[in-house]
Amino acid sequence: MDPRVEDHAEIIVDHSVSVEQGDEVIVRAPDAAEDLLVALYEKLGERGAKPVRMSQSGRANRAYMHAMDPEDFELAEHALAAVEEADVAIMVSASRNTHETGDVPPEKNAAMGKVQKPIQEAMMEKRWVGTQYPAPGNAQDAEMSTDAYEEFVWSAINKDWEEQREFQEHMVEILDPADEVRIVSGEGTDVTMSVDGMITANDYAEKNLPGGEVYTAPVPDSVEGEVHFDMPLMAQGREVEDVHLTFEDGEVVEFAAEKNEEVLAAVLETDEGASRLGELGIGMNRDIDRFTDNTLFDEKMGDTVHMALGRAYEWTVGEDRERNDSAVHMDMIVDMSEDSRIEVDGEVVQRDGTFVFEEFEE
Amino acid sequence: MDPRVEDHAEIIVDHSVSVEQGDEVIVRAPDAAEDLLVALYEKLGERGAKPVRMSQSGRANRAYMHAMDPEDFELAEHALAAVEEADVAIMVSASRNTHETGDVPPEKNAAMGKVQKPIQEAMMEKRWVGTQYPAPGNAQDAEMSTDAYEEFVWSAINKDWEEQREFQEHMVEILDPADEVRIVSGEGTDVTMSVDGMITANDYAEKNLPGGEVYTAPVPDSVEGEVHFDMPLMAQGREVEDVHLTFEDGEVVEFAAEKNEEVLAAVLETDEGASRLGELGIGMNRDIDRFTDNTLFDEKMGDTVHMALGRAYEWTVGEDRERNDSAVHMDMIVDMSEDSRIEVDGEVVQRDGTFVFEEFEE
Repeated sequence: MDPRVEDHAEIIVDHSVSVEQGDEVIVRAPDAAEDLLVALYEKLGERGAKPVRMSQSGRANRAYMHAMDPEDFELAEHALAAVEEADVAIMVSASRNTHETGDVPPEKNAAMGKVQKPIQEAMMEKRWVGTQYPAPGNAQDAEMSTDAYEEFVWSAINKDWEEQREFQEHMVEILDPADEVRIVSGEGTDVTMSVDGMITANDYAEKNLPGGEVYTAPVPDSVEGEVHFDMPLMAQGREVEDVHLTFEDGEVVEFAAEKNEEVLAAVLETDEGASRLGELGIGMNRDIDRFTDNTLFDEKMGDTVHMALGRAYEWTVGEDRERNDSAVHMDMIVDMSEDSRIEVDGEVVQRDGTFVFEEFEE
Repeated sequence: MDPRVEDHAEIIVDHSVSVEQGDEVIVRAPDAAEDLLVALYEKLGERGAKPVRMSQSGRANRAYMHAMDPEDFELAEHALAAVEEADVAIMVSASRNTHETGDVPPEKNAAMGKVQKPIQEAMMEKRWVGTQYPAPGNAQDAEMSTDAYEEFVWSAINKDWEEQREFQEHMVEILDPADEVRIVSGEGTDVTMSVDGMITANDYAEKNLPGGEVYTAPVPDSVEGEVHFDMPLMAQGREVEDVHLTFEDGEVVEFAAEKNEEVLAAVLETDEGASRLGELGIGMNRDIDRFTDNTLFDEKMGDTVHMALGRAYEWTVGEDRERNDSAVHMDMIVDMSEDSRIEVDGEVVQRDGTFVFEEFEE
């Protein structure tokens, strides 16, 4: 067993979901993650927990959805019963081929997603974590060899999360009481927004592993300016590249993309909230040093900022503040490593990828 | 997709467990059975059923059991909740290595089995079937190439089960009203027993796939004579070969085995019922033409008889008859293809592997 797999399992069990004796645990891990599954079962055994594996196969799900009449989709009550009875859910992504369900008609994918929503929601009420195992299909998406991708994934995951939490807490202390935030990068990005009365969260790998971001919600109608997003994003199964957005009174009033602009247009038209921001996040996990076409990693990339069109997380919205709601939550990333700065209430708090509290600490 | 896999899936779904629209289905299929899993999901989708995969990994289970304190084993309530809510359970065996849990201490295996008993029992109250996918580890146990083993497995499974049911029904009609049965084979086997008042069952692949046997329960104290079992049997993880048993008043009074005789001794001493027969079965699936070290197949082998020490199945015991009870149910097989006969109430009903109703029908 690769010791990095054992470390990964230990961080999941002890840090992310804090498994205790007697916990009923659901493990969702596909076949491609077998080594991590074995390591998880060992740690769960050591702690006297009770795992049940409810895994999914991309190939099987594709065959099922193809065969189903769209009107026959129904909630699987037996799956819900298991989740409701559980204390902990560990969800591992891993794929031999990330396009395994790529030819399922969108209306069937949507129907399946809809009937599974109560199961997803029940999971979110438990101690849960979503993580990634570096399977060959995921390495391929990242345009990396499997060995290099393994090193990338485990560097991002197997770290001292208490130290990371403390590092990020500096940024929370700056952002949480702030009013105005300005993001400037290169020629294309100069945007300001209010985060007044909003709550800044510190993601140190509890629900997402890897974690590594600090995030809050903008006041919905406060966003002004333009943004050029440097990294491609996936929407409706297609890659959208070089997105430019212009905001007035919080709303997107102009948009462009070099590739798949019509997908971007469709996203923006989903509902009213889809053309406003629901999240401002600061990526602070510097072991994530490249784009790998996987939001779990990309949005935590060191020296980046991300903004999401659509739904704001409840816990980032102050009690007396409006929450931007939408069926959409689309993260888009800006590179902040060069020719860039973050200003908070007029003071520069990050320049070219270096935070003000890093200079203080030197 | 191999069309034999699709046929296998269709027989499971339509014949063995008769899946209907809206059925909540639990599929237990390990990674090594992925093709059958995909085919099953397709058939389940076509019929509008709702599958949830609750699979087990031998490697993960081994790691878990090794790590657990034997006193910490507890019922997984979330697994039980899913099973109780289900209508159908499909259990597929398949293994890349059938010895994956072979180094788990027996007391942990026993503890695990004990806490899982309510889950097993809940499954037995549903429409359920147990079947085999021809994975490389199972082919290895059978001492066959994977390709030859695939052909063997699917020949035994993918057949006209209505025709097989009718063929076996001839034997049910002989055995069900019978009193005395005598089995004679070679030098070593000449045993008589009463089946008076017992019920003969016709196994045509409802709960076991493959099926292919006709079986009943002997009157516990009626068995007299000696039996030489030609095929090895597995008990407590070890192979016992060339078993000889001598019965008086239904009880084993002498025993011998060429290999692992002490295992046989331990089985016989388990409890009072372990030294009496609980089953007499007639194997009638002639596509199973060889021993493959897998009871699911071996006990249905054409031109064989099997007798089980220990527990009798409730449904084979007449209302006013005593049921032999035991923690043990150990099937042992006698070859009936040569120099052998089955007599029922003094009449020969099978000689050298040919049934009396086959001669009639010619």
